[in-house]
Amino acid sequence: MSFNEIANQFVKFYYDTFDSNRSGLAGLYRDNSMLTFETNQIQGAAGISEKLVGLPFQKVVHRISTFDAQPAGPDGSIIVMVTGEILFDEETNPQRYSQTFHLLPEGGSYFVLNDIFRLNYA
Amino acid sequence: MSFNEIANQFVKFYYDTFDSNRSGLAGLYRDNSMLTFETNQIQGAAGISEKLVGLPFQKVVHRISTFDAQPAGPDGSIIVMVTGEILFDEETNPQRYSQTFHLLPEGGSYFVLNDIFRLNYA
Repeated sequence: MSFNEIANQFVKFYYDTFDSNRSGLAGLYRDNSMLTFETNQIQGAAGISEKLVGLPFQKVVHRISTFDAQPAGPDGSIIVMVTGEILFDEETNPQRYSQTFHLLPEGGSYFVLNDIFRLNYA
Repeated sequence: MSFNEIANQFVKFYYDTFDSNRSGLAGLYRDNSMLTFETNQIQGAAGISEKLVGLPFQKVVHRISTFDAQPAGPDGSIIVMVTGEILFDEETNPQRYSQTFHLLPEGGSYFVLNDIFRLNYA
């Protein structure tokens, strides 16, 4: 698979899982993974999963606007930047967001070393 | 310097140079660097510099809204995601943008291996 196909599969899995069952994201992270979620920085799979599961909304829907991937080094790692809209709970006005992932190969699959998420306020 | 300080210095230099003298950005890229600028993908310092210098506006001002950095591996590389506003030429309505940089250490300094830029349309 090309880096674009890998990134595309990852992004689809990530947001499908985020929007349906956030606890299913834990397996994407390792002990050296980092998540920046707005102004919070968390290191390690356990803390990241706890943060994601505990986010204060019940229902969430991501809609991707743009999605760009690049190979990020000779080790096969991949960088992905996503921009899109996110709808929380019963809100009807989506908020725009940007998110960057750094994916590292591991035993035929990939894990998330870096994850940076920001809402884009107008 | 911490990764946050390095990223902060880089971001300041990058946008100051972009807004005053785009040709000064060439030295930040190498032959294996990649730029995604909207839907265009370019590899290599020469092509990236040509693309940046040839962008069809004379005056440009970036205003940073958020800026987040993370260490991106044991080699000292750094990932930075910036969101902000950009004003082209005589326009008075800024457009929102997102940009991701992957910085790699090289001889006491850093170069840009990955650069992804997208305007965020509402």
